[in-house]
Amino acid sequence: MTAATPDTLSERPGRIMAREMAEQPAVLRRILADGAPAIRDVARRIAARAPRFVLLTARGTSDNAALYAKYLLEIRLGLPCGLTSMSTTTAYGARPDLTDVLVVTVSQSGGSPDLVASTRAAREADAITLAVTNNPDSPLAGVSEYHIDIMAGPEKALPATKTYTASLLALYLFVEGLRGGDGAPAQVLPDLAEQLLARQDEVRTLAARYRFAERMVITSRGYGYPTAKEAALKLMETSYIPALSYSGADLLHGPLAMVDNVSPVIAVVTDGKGGEALQPVLDRLRGRGADLVVIGPRHQVEQTSAGFALPTDDVAEEVQPVLEIIPLQLLAYEVTIARGQDPDAPRALAKVTPTR
Amino acid sequence: MTAATPDTLSERPGRIMAREMAEQPAVLRRILADGAPAIRDVARRIAARAPRFVLLTARGTSDNAALYAKYLLEIRLGLPCGLTSMSTTTAYGARPDLTDVLVVTVSQSGGSPDLVASTRAAREADAITLAVTNNPDSPLAGVSEYHIDIMAGPEKALPATKTYTASLLALYLFVEGLRGGDGAPAQVLPDLAEQLLARQDEVRTLAARYRFAERMVITSRGYGYPTAKEAALKLMETSYIPALSYSGADLLHGPLAMVDNVSPVIAVVTDGKGGEALQPVLDRLRGRGADLVVIGPRHQVEQTSAGFALPTDDVAEEVQPVLEIIPLQLLAYEVTIARGQDPDAPRALAKVTPTR
Repeated sequence: MTAATPDTLSERPGRIMAREMAEQPAVLRRILADGAPAIRDVARRIAARAPRFVLLTARGTSDNAALYAKYLLEIRLGLPCGLTSMSTTTAYGARPDLTDVLVVTVSQSGGSPDLVASTRAAREADAITLAVTNNPDSPLAGVSEYHIDIMAGPEKALPATKTYTASLLALYLFVEGLRGGDGAPAQVLPDLAEQLLARQDEVRTLAARYRFAERMVITSRGYGYPTAKEAALKLMETSYIPALSYSGADLLHGPLAMVDNVSPVIAVVTDGKGGEALQPVLDRLRGRGADLVVIGPRHQVEQTSAGFALPTDDVAEEVQPVLEIIPLQLLAYEVTIARGQDPDAPRALAKVTPTR
Repeated sequence: MTAATPDTLSERPGRIMAREMAEQPAVLRRILADGAPAIRDVARRIAARAPRFVLLTARGTSDNAALYAKYLLEIRLGLPCGLTSMSTTTAYGARPDLTDVLVVTVSQSGGSPDLVASTRAAREADAITLAVTNNPDSPLAGVSEYHIDIMAGPEKALPATKTYTASLLALYLFVEGLRGGDGAPAQVLPDLAEQLLARQDEVRTLAARYRFAERMVITSRGYGYPTAKEAALKLMETSYIPALSYSGADLLHGPLAMVDNVSPVIAVVTDGKGGEALQPVLDRLRGRGADLVVIGPRHQVEQTSAGFALPTDDVAEEVQPVLEIIPLQLLAYEVTIARGQDPDAPRALAKVTPTR
């Protein structure tokens, strides 16, 4: 963040989003210091009930956090998972048998009526219900048997940022807790998040590239795929650029036809097996002469025309998504400013979206 | 289809896609007449094993067919479902316990190595495995315990059309078979599909609207949501227009900021509970002055500036997706022609995509 007096700050477009992005290291520290014991306790009690399947329910940014949890649950715990199609419950009245099923509902506000209704229905169908929210007093927390508080503090900006990284960290600690782990690999995150936020000038340079973009494609594989989806959502919410996100494998199954020298591509390359699985896609994109920007390890960035190098030493692959999204949040912010718009004033959003 | 001699036909852009779209009524008749008994038999044998959870695995167009099956399984059978994140198996080597889990893999070619690998891994993890393909001799059919042949005949066009509707019908008959039904509501589909294909001129008029579109948003809820996703994929594969698909509820949670008078919206309105749940979204879009085109019941089309009326009398909501996609396939085709491109020549696709 550039230094600013309170007065000039209050006049800057995007000041609310900027302030909340800047709070992320403090939020991550708070979760690790004050939130972790309660999360571990919830995890221990749920593990004792030995769920066989997990259903994850969320919308918007929280849906991308839920997808991250799905990767963790499948890879780290071997639990089969699904993301729910909420309308099957709320519109069609489906009442599946949810014995032995853990239903995790993620929502920053905990106030969306459809999430409350579907969670209540799940509990009535004998599911183990867990709400992950930024508000312990919310209706969603109230109807759920268990609750995890992501402790991000009030979020005022319409594009969610600190509640996203807070949800990722809370879900990581929860999944590690289910398997009896202590989540030690997360300890490096607050300091590294702070270092990333200090590199806003680098992101501003990158943002100039997209000032006139009419579309963008964001791709990844594995743990980075939720990052790609969340980055696309952030870019659309703030700059209104149509940003399409695909897993690298799905990109090859169709939408690649759309990628050419006027469709820039951002690849989120997680350092580890996800990034390795993305290599053939990167080679294919380079072969087509795509405008490719890499957010990932330095050696990957150096193979492309532009990018943003992420710290990877001693950062376990499964916690990298907490860091990967930060330069992409900054990018959405900077691209929006570069296009003369205000990231704090998306045209149509209310903070609590009352879908039913 | 306009009448054409074989010679003029062979010179027309998009002739391969046009021919395969036109085959759809015949393919649907073939499945109902010749395929249904075998599908019912597979369903009966799988029902006897009482799966508790279903995982669906697919990519591209087949992934949209799998999503349709997810709605059917959840709503009609009350079975919790998930779509798999394939990289958890193929890149990360996750080996979940799949006892009592039915794993359905949908693939027109049955040849993609990652689908074969993930299905083999599922079988080794004690899942009940079912492959739904257009090739009974494919590697995927070979590694699966059960197989359903969608009987669509060879598909040469890169944008899949007839294999999509064939997959939907086969999956519908399978799910109905699981619950002991005969799938009688599907009998109306071949004739109605034929009537829709005969209205290509109407679609051509609609296509003129999108000749200069730089982006499109396609929305739906419930059973129509897979249609919205498949329509977006078709438009991107053929015309390269960035087409973003959202469930109506998700659209309100963020991307709505992108919808304005230069982002046309297509709403797929299924006649039934899905369409009802979409009404608040349609009202919101109309309130914003969005360019809204409705594909749905006549009374819904009449409330908007333009649209395409679907037959709904005596068409059960759960089979409407087989019809809804047809005008949207035609739209992708006609928009592409209108933009001076060839729907048969997407720039980057191979018919069997060897993702790993």
